[in-house]
Amino acid sequence: MSNSEIIHTFLNPKSVAVIGASSNPLKGGNRIVNNLVNNRFNGMVHPINPNGNGEIYGLKFKSSVLDIKEEVDLAIFYVPNQKIPSLLKDCIEKQIKGAIIEASGFEEVGDMGLELRDEILEITDNFKKIRLVGPNCMGLTRIDGDSRSENKGGFFSSFGVFSYYQRGNIAIISQSGMLNGGYLMHIFSSYPKIGFRYSISIGNKMDLGENDFLEYLIEDPTVNVIAIYLESFKEPRKFLDLCNKVKKKGDKTIILVKGGVSELGQKAAHSHTGTLAENERLINAIIKQAGIIQANSFHELFQYARTFSMMYTTKKNFPKNGNVSMVAGSGGAGTITADLTHKHNLDFPVLSEPSYKVLLEVFPEWMPPNKFSLVDIWPAMEKAMMNNINPQLVTAKVYDALIKDNNIEGVFNMLFCSKLYRQFNDLSGIIDEIRNNPKPFFFWLVGDKKEVEKTSRFLSQHDIPDFPSLEDMVKNFKILLQESRNKSIDLLKTNSK
Amino acid sequence: MSNSEIIHTFLNPKSVAVIGASSNPLKGGNRIVNNLVNNRFNGMVHPINPNGNGEIYGLKFKSSVLDIKEEVDLAIFYVPNQKIPSLLKDCIEKQIKGAIIEASGFEEVGDMGLELRDEILEITDNFKKIRLVGPNCMGLTRIDGDSRSENKGGFFSSFGVFSYYQRGNIAIISQSGMLNGGYLMHIFSSYPKIGFRYSISIGNKMDLGENDFLEYLIEDPTVNVIAIYLESFKEPRKFLDLCNKVKKKGDKTIILVKGGVSELGQKAAHSHTGTLAENERLINAIIKQAGIIQANSFHELFQYARTFSMMYTTKKNFPKNGNVSMVAGSGGAGTITADLTHKHNLDFPVLSEPSYKVLLEVFPEWMPPNKFSLVDIWPAMEKAMMNNINPQLVTAKVYDALIKDNNIEGVFNMLFCSKLYRQFNDLSGIIDEIRNNPKPFFFWLVGDKKEVEKTSRFLSQHDIPDFPSLEDMVKNFKILLQESRNKSIDLLKTNSK
Repeated sequence: MSNSEIIHTFLNPKSVAVIGASSNPLKGGNRIVNNLVNNRFNGMVHPINPNGNGEIYGLKFKSSVLDIKEEVDLAIFYVPNQKIPSLLKDCIEKQIKGAIIEASGFEEVGDMGLELRDEILEITDNFKKIRLVGPNCMGLTRIDGDSRSENKGGFFSSFGVFSYYQRGNIAIISQSGMLNGGYLMHIFSSYPKIGFRYSISIGNKMDLGENDFLEYLIEDPTVNVIAIYLESFKEPRKFLDLCNKVKKKGDKTIILVKGGVSELGQKAAHSHTGTLAENERLINAIIKQAGIIQANSFHELFQYARTFSMMYTTKKNFPKNGNVSMVAGSGGAGTITADLTHKHNLDFPVLSEPSYKVLLEVFPEWMPPNKFSLVDIWPAMEKAMMNNINPQLVTAKVYDALIKDNNIEGVFNMLFCSKLYRQFNDLSGIIDEIRNNPKPFFFWLVGDKKEVEKTSRFLSQHDIPDFPSLEDMVKNFKILLQESRNKSIDLLKTNSK
Repeated sequence: MSNSEIIHTFLNPKSVAVIGASSNPLKGGNRIVNNLVNNRFNGMVHPINPNGNGEIYGLKFKSSVLDIKEEVDLAIFYVPNQKIPSLLKDCIEKQIKGAIIEASGFEEVGDMGLELRDEILEITDNFKKIRLVGPNCMGLTRIDGDSRSENKGGFFSSFGVFSYYQRGNIAIISQSGMLNGGYLMHIFSSYPKIGFRYSISIGNKMDLGENDFLEYLIEDPTVNVIAIYLESFKEPRKFLDLCNKVKKKGDKTIILVKGGVSELGQKAAHSHTGTLAENERLINAIIKQAGIIQANSFHELFQYARTFSMMYTTKKNFPKNGNVSMVAGSGGAGTITADLTHKHNLDFPVLSEPSYKVLLEVFPEWMPPNKFSLVDIWPAMEKAMMNNINPQLVTAKVYDALIKDNNIEGVFNMLFCSKLYRQFNDLSGIIDEIRNNPKPFFFWLVGDKKEVEKTSRFLSQHDIPDFPSLEDMVKNFKILLQESRNKSIDLLKTNSK
């Protein structure tokens, strides 16, 4: 089988056996069957447990995979590490194509685990007889439709609780099962409307690793953003080649968090996934050469993923020069953002003449606007209100001028959100223009928490991001510039050949 | 009057005149009177407006301060800039001691504003006849009691909406009115239980500035944390002297955000508060010499302020060496935190023998604990559950060992919060030990948003901070180390004299 066929089978199995299925709802082997059945996996599910009694979620227990008459694509293991070798033999006999092993206790626990690994290598003839994902992982997830919609469905092999999710254009490949489990739930409930297509937990990657899945995702048209967490590179050269392929695609971005870059981190990684120490300089060289977006923490990883997801969904142009504007009702926020903009190598350029003229119109004489593109909009709002004009009309005029201004590639916004002064954060009349114009619009919301959350939900329903801090907002614009440079550098190289 | 007497009068006036008081609830001059009356300011309030008709919040309008019979300590101005000189003359005639000028349109708008300033300097004889806060500010706030308590009260001269607030040990001094207004409301509603004692908006600081208020706050026993936002230093030498005084106090910390450190930021600051450009290297030298905590954004400023506030409230010891432990249920989170810990010059030290023995007891044989102080607690939890032991008892044992371990100065915690598995985030049995032991305990919460927020509220009710990202958690520990070094370096200097 080609790599594409293998990975396709792992992500789209037609029938699966759950080895270690359990009637006890507190056990992982119960939740895997629960996740498959209740999320409408459209293939066959065979619960396997020699001690299993009767049915589980309407499905009959079988003692062994050898008792199944039909063909089986995948076996999902939720049993202690010691039992795996003999059960794998059954799977090979049954001609099952792949196994997902979620148990831990292999490379990461020293000698005993290494012996187990050697046994598995022998049984599988170095994975010629059956392919393997894991061990020490949270399984594979494919989301076909949102959990609250009629189209709910997909493939769910995690032992985590998987009851609320949304489909989108992001895929995760992770060596930390938490990112495919608890943290993913956190992300779903924290960011309204964020969506994922695949959640791939590769664990210790004894057989299949990041490159195998990456190669598949590059050709998958449903995925625009690939968010990766690695504790080691399996084949750095291959990884670089794949990243280079992504650079040539206009609609794909890779974001990477590399764990274990420091000596202390490597000690931690070793006890987590059995990773051997890698040279810090080598790691940094790989990441630099790969021309991908690097994130320093899980927070950055998912925030960046959401930003790119929204930008691809709304077909925004990425900045080429880093020239941005800001519309804010606070001089202090403008000043701090200017410092942060400078720190991250972006700029507030001078406004073009036509847009400066528009600002002169809406600003009061006693407080003329800046010539550079930091728009402290409060005086213009005050003037509007004094003349009984809806302040939203002023915002609309300013936005329109900035969208038409060729010096400007995107707009930062600070919005004051308060129930009492809802006229300032009511964007209903201009939301379509904000969404459908080609320039990224980013928001920072300040005010009463409930009103901030309401506005944030409204923005995200229109695929417009807001950020919890000014620095987050600036950094998320910087990565768009970085990505457009990654891609154009590569295009230059290609053209000069 | 001494500086202390002047500032005391500004923060604790016995009677005030609100010049520009208005019957229109949408106007700032209405909200100032509203804030004073409804928040139970216990002095006299005189609404002044020559066009004022009848009463406002039960108080009779007067045409001029000269119509008031009683003594008046302060005049709060909410009128357009052009009207201020002549009204100030009335205040001087009435022998009012201080004026808070909230209008903008002075140094920041060029020639016209500079002329106004010169006029004010002449009228006041360089502020010998009356002292001044502002212009271009949000006034002064003193909080005596929480808005929802019986002790509700204080002094409130801001034109912002001031309906929900809590008293605490933090004071703000800011050149951005937003931090004293909309953003402060944001902070109150975002961080349950954060409390402030004063909110001081100094605006363009034409007369009184950061040093005058800082000098007063250093001697005020109700304040432990002073959070400052500046766009310029008024007298850098004096500022350094005051910071040195703070270093000698065991119970006070200054946190500073400096706006306008870059050329772009200075352009923004100039159009905001009329600040003239300062040399970036000079600014950095001042901050370094001052030995204070520097924050890069508003988000950091208030997060750091909250952390110090809680640490002082619970009398925690600040770390001296940066040796921290982590208790996490995710190897990936442990690895990333190890990298971040290294990045910020902290360390996970080796556990002492007695605490390692405790870990050996609670961990299963197939997954022994690390010898260094990163505790991946999940296997121990699993072992407890298999033996029908409450996993919280395991957490309690581990915490107890870490608290007794002399190698360790604080504990990071990752907590999985889910309604289904509440046994993992139910800290009720051990919260008192977490709070009352001398080591800082920091939390990172992951899981369902509602459950995360519930746990966060519970922690903050006990003055224990949680953070939205691992990097925030690590940075907030780093500043404790930095502050203990600031103070000990200074103590060394003092001792060697």
